[in-house]
Amino acid sequence: MNALDTLIEALKRLPGVGQKSAQRMAYHLLQHDRLAMPRLAAALTAAGENIGHCERCHTFSETPICSVCADAGRDGRLLCVVETPADQAAFERTGSYRGYYFVLLGRLSPLDGIGTRQIGAAELLERASEDGVEEVILATSFTAEGEATAHVLAEALKARGIKSTRLARGVPVGSELEYVDLGTIAHALSDRR
Amino acid sequence: MNALDTLIEALKRLPGVGQKSAQRMAYHLLQHDRLAMPRLAAALTAAGENIGHCERCHTFSETPICSVCADAGRDGRLLCVVETPADQAAFERTGSYRGYYFVLLGRLSPLDGIGTRQIGAAELLERASEDGVEEVILATSFTAEGEATAHVLAEALKARGIKSTRLARGVPVGSELEYVDLGTIAHALSDRR
Ligand SMILES: [Zn+2]
Ligand SMILES: [Zn+2]
Repeated sequence: MNALDTLIEALKRLPGVGQKSAQRMAYHLLQHDRLAMPRLAAALTAAGENIGHCERCHTFSETPICSVCADAGRDGRLLCVVETPADQAAFERTGSYRGYYFVLLGRLSPLDGIGTRQIGAAELLERASEDGVEEVILATSFTAEGEATAHVLAEALKARGIKSTRLARGVPVGSELEYVDLGTIAHALSDRR
Repeated sequence: MNALDTLIEALKRLPGVGQKSAQRMAYHLLQHDRLAMPRLAAALTAAGENIGHCERCHTFSETPICSVCADAGRDGRLLCVVETPADQAAFERTGSYRGYYFVLLGRLSPLDGIGTRQIGAAELLERASEDGVEEVILATSFTAEGEATAHVLAEALKARGIKSTRLARGVPVGSELEYVDLGTIAHALSDRR
């Protein structure tokens, strides 16, 4: 395979990139942005070599303990469980959460071979049992698998006497009720406060 | 900037990739496809170092003369002028053209500083003046700039006594007339044969 086809094949491994976009990307780089090529190559190499997982919360980190876990100024009473580093980043962007995190790096999906071991459930239980933790917020997604994951973790935490909560399901801020799906409205009604 | 943000910034340089997709790509690679990272890095490096332009037709090539120009079995009477290597690839995929190419690597756009020099007009005229060339097919796009480019090149070729033609504008194969825009129908009518 020649260098151009090899590049197109490699670009197709990126999520959401098919044959046509990969071709467009390769042509664009070669014709208009040659400098971006070594830059992206270096960034990929550095990321692959330096980014691992935080020993404490499992999020992406270049250091054994990530900057959030290393921040003593956070609220140690709260531990928020999310599925991915992207979910954690979304929480951080809201600016309204000051506790710590635990990142599952997935959600239970027995058919895909993802069980409690793969999401680090034992490490989560250990982390949640540490002194000072008063509430574990199960912020997994509101999909069937996310709900099942939250349910299993809530039971395990309860068995150890640890309180867990779930994010409120409700109407997205800024939406008109008319256009919100009925399941969401029903949940917002039952979770009303 | 940390390795993750550096990777996201580098991915954003790809055409059609914004902050959100770049983030999704970076997370996907780090979490699910680590092997793709050194592979893409190597492909980018190899492409950047090895892919240049064919001396004869200006398309992308790893050798001084590309495989099409080096193929003596092609029809030397025809020279097809396209804007980009992608356009050339599209022609090749049709399997219905057996002549040679000249790739402009752009189209005239005086406001962007792209003049006859930037599209290699002099080299094209020289190539078209070679023995055996009987017809130059101006296959630039049917946009204002593509049409202007074809017009300028046609005049220059004509001044040298070289015949040029333009692709037929018409109704795309497989379309229902009802859904084809009126300008296209008008052109298809005037270009009828
Ligand atoms: Zn951490
Ligand atoms: Zn060539």
